[in-house]
Amino acid sequence: MKLSVDNKLNLLRELMIKNSITAYLVTSSDFHQSEYTGNFFKTREYISNFSGSSGTVLITLDNAYLWTDGRYFLQAEKELSGSEFHLFKTGLKDTPTVQEFIKNTMKNNDTLAFDGRTVSYNLMLEFISASKEKFFQLKINMDLINEIWENRPPLSKEKVFLLEEQYSGEKAVTKLKRLRHIMINKNATCHILSSLDDICWLFNLRGKDIKYNPVVLSYAIIFIDKTILFIDKSKISTEIELYFNNINVEIQDYNGFYKYLHKIDSSSVVLLDYNKINSSIYQALPKEIHIINEINPENSMKSIKNLVEIKNNYRAHIKDGVAMTKFIYWLKNNISKNKISELDVVNKIEAFRKGQEGFMELSFETIAAYGKNAAMMHYLPNNKNFSFLEPKNLILIDSGGQYLEGTTDITRTISLGNVDPQIKKHYTYVLKSLIALSKSKFPHHTFGGSLDSIARNVIWEIGLDYRCATGHGVGHFLNVHEGPNILRPSADCIISPDMVTTIEPGIYIDNSHGIRLENETLTTKSFKNEYGLFLEFKTLTFVPIDIEAIELCFLNKEEINWINSYHEMVFEKISPFLNREEAAWLKSQTKNI
Amino acid sequence: MKLSVDNKLNLLRELMIKNSITAYLVTSSDFHQSEYTGNFFKTREYISNFSGSSGTVLITLDNAYLWTDGRYFLQAEKELSGSEFHLFKTGLKDTPTVQEFIKNTMKNNDTLAFDGRTVSYNLMLEFISASKEKFFQLKINMDLINEIWENRPPLSKEKVFLLEEQYSGEKAVTKLKRLRHIMINKNATCHILSSLDDICWLFNLRGKDIKYNPVVLSYAIIFIDKTILFIDKSKISTEIELYFNNINVEIQDYNGFYKYLHKIDSSSVVLLDYNKINSSIYQALPKEIHIINEINPENSMKSIKNLVEIKNNYRAHIKDGVAMTKFIYWLKNNISKNKISELDVVNKIEAFRKGQEGFMELSFETIAAYGKNAAMMHYLPNNKNFSFLEPKNLILIDSGGQYLEGTTDITRTISLGNVDPQIKKHYTYVLKSLIALSKSKFPHHTFGGSLDSIARNVIWEIGLDYRCATGHGVGHFLNVHEGPNILRPSADCIISPDMVTTIEPGIYIDNSHGIRLENETLTTKSFKNEYGLFLEFKTLTFVPIDIEAIELCFLNKEEINWINSYHEMVFEKISPFLNREEAAWLKSQTKNI
Repeated sequence: MKLSVDNKLNLLRELMIKNSITAYLVTSSDFHQSEYTGNFFKTREYISNFSGSSGTVLITLDNAYLWTDGRYFLQAEKELSGSEFHLFKTGLKDTPTVQEFIKNTMKNNDTLAFDGRTVSYNLMLEFISASKEKFFQLKINMDLINEIWENRPPLSKEKVFLLEEQYSGEKAVTKLKRLRHIMINKNATCHILSSLDDICWLFNLRGKDIKYNPVVLSYAIIFIDKTILFIDKSKISTEIELYFNNINVEIQDYNGFYKYLHKIDSSSVVLLDYNKINSSIYQALPKEIHIINEINPENSMKSIKNLVEIKNNYRAHIKDGVAMTKFIYWLKNNISKNKISELDVVNKIEAFRKGQEGFMELSFETIAAYGKNAAMMHYLPNNKNFSFLEPKNLILIDSGGQYLEGTTDITRTISLGNVDPQIKKHYTYVLKSLIALSKSKFPHHTFGGSLDSIARNVIWEIGLDYRCATGHGVGHFLNVHEGPNILRPSADCIISPDMVTTIEPGIYIDNSHGIRLENETLTTKSFKNEYGLFLEFKTLTFVPIDIEAIELCFLNKEEINWINSYHEMVFEKISPFLNREEAAWLKSQTKNI
Repeated sequence: MKLSVDNKLNLLRELMIKNSITAYLVTSSDFHQSEYTGNFFKTREYISNFSGSSGTVLITLDNAYLWTDGRYFLQAEKELSGSEFHLFKTGLKDTPTVQEFIKNTMKNNDTLAFDGRTVSYNLMLEFISASKEKFFQLKINMDLINEIWENRPPLSKEKVFLLEEQYSGEKAVTKLKRLRHIMINKNATCHILSSLDDICWLFNLRGKDIKYNPVVLSYAIIFIDKTILFIDKSKISTEIELYFNNINVEIQDYNGFYKYLHKIDSSSVVLLDYNKINSSIYQALPKEIHIINEINPENSMKSIKNLVEIKNNYRAHIKDGVAMTKFIYWLKNNISKNKISELDVVNKIEAFRKGQEGFMELSFETIAAYGKNAAMMHYLPNNKNFSFLEPKNLILIDSGGQYLEGTTDITRTISLGNVDPQIKKHYTYVLKSLIALSKSKFPHHTFGGSLDSIARNVIWEIGLDYRCATGHGVGHFLNVHEGPNILRPSADCIISPDMVTTIEPGIYIDNSHGIRLENETLTTKSFKNEYGLFLEFKTLTFVPIDIEAIELCFLNKEEINWINSYHEMVFEKISPFLNREEAAWLKSQTKNI
């Protein structure tokens, strides 16, 4: 029998009373602060019925609350209806954050409990400070959902595989050597790592534990003379066991990690990142340990792509460009002939990508948003909610693939026929914005925030803006969102040579239309003079930009030149992999304007 | 008899030995961390003979060192020659900072001494940390230069005056009320203020203790129920004494400040700024006191100009524009007729400004740099070192005035005849850069760093950059450099409505030429929509931009439109105050291009 949300809440509250708990918190995190999570970790969805990717639940003996953001207000209202859950709309002016709400409502001697493995230590620090101010207690190792969740999905058991050197470009031993050099410079004797993409990058390991992210559930502890990887041993073949043996990495069981932490020598100096490690990790460490709380060194190490990665990335983008170009041809060719839905678009793009050698899976859920749907930046069509395309207006398609050679992320907004002149103007300004940053040459050590405004200023010119970053770092056959490089107003990250970053300005007009154009770029050295080294963004994406949606009068000569030379390059790279009709079409799509 | 530097060093070392001092530090600061200082404070110049505006001296029993930056390398070498001083060139790769040098050379039980009133507490914190690491001692109340300096110039005795409400726009009592509101919100019971422009702004007081800066040497302590101003009482007339009496401000002697600090109740919560207060202030406070170390609230309060200030500022800029326009006419008209030197230019500009009603003094030393001199960003002609102008090439003139109605800061680079096409191209790009930021409309809460790159990106386009900020805040009949608003690559200050900020991009090519165009602007509200409030820079400066140096081919339509409408405005505002010849000339200089 499937329990109702209210049944579940009753069961949970029984446990809360038994354990003297006043309020119980459920987050949407796994144990590793991953952006996407496996089914085992969907505790928040289990207890609330709310299935969005982001949301936090707080249950007291009398009330139940869910916090989620603007992307999910409608969905949350629908999924919570009929239950006792109250919805807090994050981001609205009068909505308290979870932390504020807890601080304001907890009383003397109350107890807040949660599974500390699903709460970052930085968030935990806020609860600690609130608990000291309001004199309530914290119990941080309580996975109560586990006790009421019958048939909880098991942790993923997918086998792991190694990314061969022809793809990774650097042996794990040299990565470890570079890492230890950094540790020694910081006087750290131990480094605790729980972020999955960092671990996978470090050991040239990949897995299938999380959809879209080729990572494996694991922890790692790197000492100066010893390395331990905590992982479900059943995922490891004899061959991979030998590999780790050869590079002196000791394998211990995933579940043995927290016990091991107790045993770390209390005179250690431990390098870790409060934003990445969870509260239970912190709590399990000996109290006398000296901690260096910094962004994990792997974060910036893996953002600087090596030559093999760069060469492979280029190949991945050729493949992805071929798939996308074939798709756009198919779409333009069929829009007037067949009934096509957003879901058909999603499936067709995946099919074209699957046709490419080395394709592993999508790098995120495909956004295919027709007409006014595109005004919702994170719109995803699904079986219950999707639109049919018509031979007019624009469709926004944001999608990407995981290839052995790299990860892609690309957006095109495509004209399906007649487009309103005002919308064409917006399309042209988004293109101008993309071009402005794409052709900028900037001194090394320029901040992401300074580059962001070069693109954004073009959209400001017509009195508009976009409520998201201008771009983000991309992993190498890893997560599609990766730091430290990000282009947004306040970003103080340095954009360095050999980083891969998207440029994706947009215009989103509620209930009308949405436009985004996104290229992936590689930061390269441009020239050096008395002002130092200048960098530029070399575009990695090879997919035509729809010239049918452009209003030429808004473009200047340099912008037109940029488009023409970009299109020449697209034709040159992509046409050899197309059939005759597709190639002829691409020729016309990439002609000089 | 004038003592030689080596005589002075001998006298100083006798005192050092007597006081068991190993190293003695002399800075170029006054007691208030002012940018400019009075003659009394020129201890570093006295002991070293180096007269540059910025430099630090360290004297040990065996050696003497001076640190200064690139602006002064040649001058320092000249002025130090013949003495035992060793020059450390700040900013070069292998040059240690003063702090690093001290940390590296001081030994167990050594003693570092200085006059703590001339060292900010933030710098002092670095010495404290070094002294703990290297086990040396600090003596922070040793003004040894005073003991050897015969005929030391006295502290300025200039009378102070009040800035009437018709100029200040807000009574001191309401400023104090707003300040106390902020203090109460921060739970501060006391606020210690030593930055002179903040004090003058708060009390609507002005003085003549520092050239170019109409401030008065003073300290202030603001309690919730009481205010004390520490100032040389001889500077205050009976009328001003009455004024302070009426607004409940107690006057105490300037020299009584440090003794008073001892008496502050030790249960106080004191708001102050470690970057602004000196070490002796910190040391004089009771040890039990609770300190809130934050940027002084006056810093941002005075940056938001009130309506009266804005209206007056506009008037000051009309006057300044008239003076500058008359000057440029004179220069263009006389360059082929008379022998004119950079010093003549400096004098002539001052004369034209003096002709304006309400003019008080210059707001900084006039930069008049002909030809390749302009490549040195801070070039100042003087009696020993200046050039004569010829009827060709460019002259860069950066100057400003202090008026009762406000402070101006304006740069024009002016063609004196034939100009090389490459230099004209650079001139045009500097102009494009000025226009790019001048016409930008940006959301409220945009950082200075994001705006900086909008101007800088234009200069980057041709592979160049400038090694200074794009712009800075300007005081209101106060210091020409004022925070918190600044436009530079990493600036995280928010540019708010009613701030006054310069925009001054440039190109400086060593041994060839230098170009800077600088306007003062007022941040105003532009429009409001679903993305919030947008702001823009309204140009306050009304001085023609020399169209003879423009290469039209590098300008687009919008840029030409901007120049034409700027020039229409300049003609409209300035021509009524010119004679017939000047007006006719201005008409031709501001004609549509």
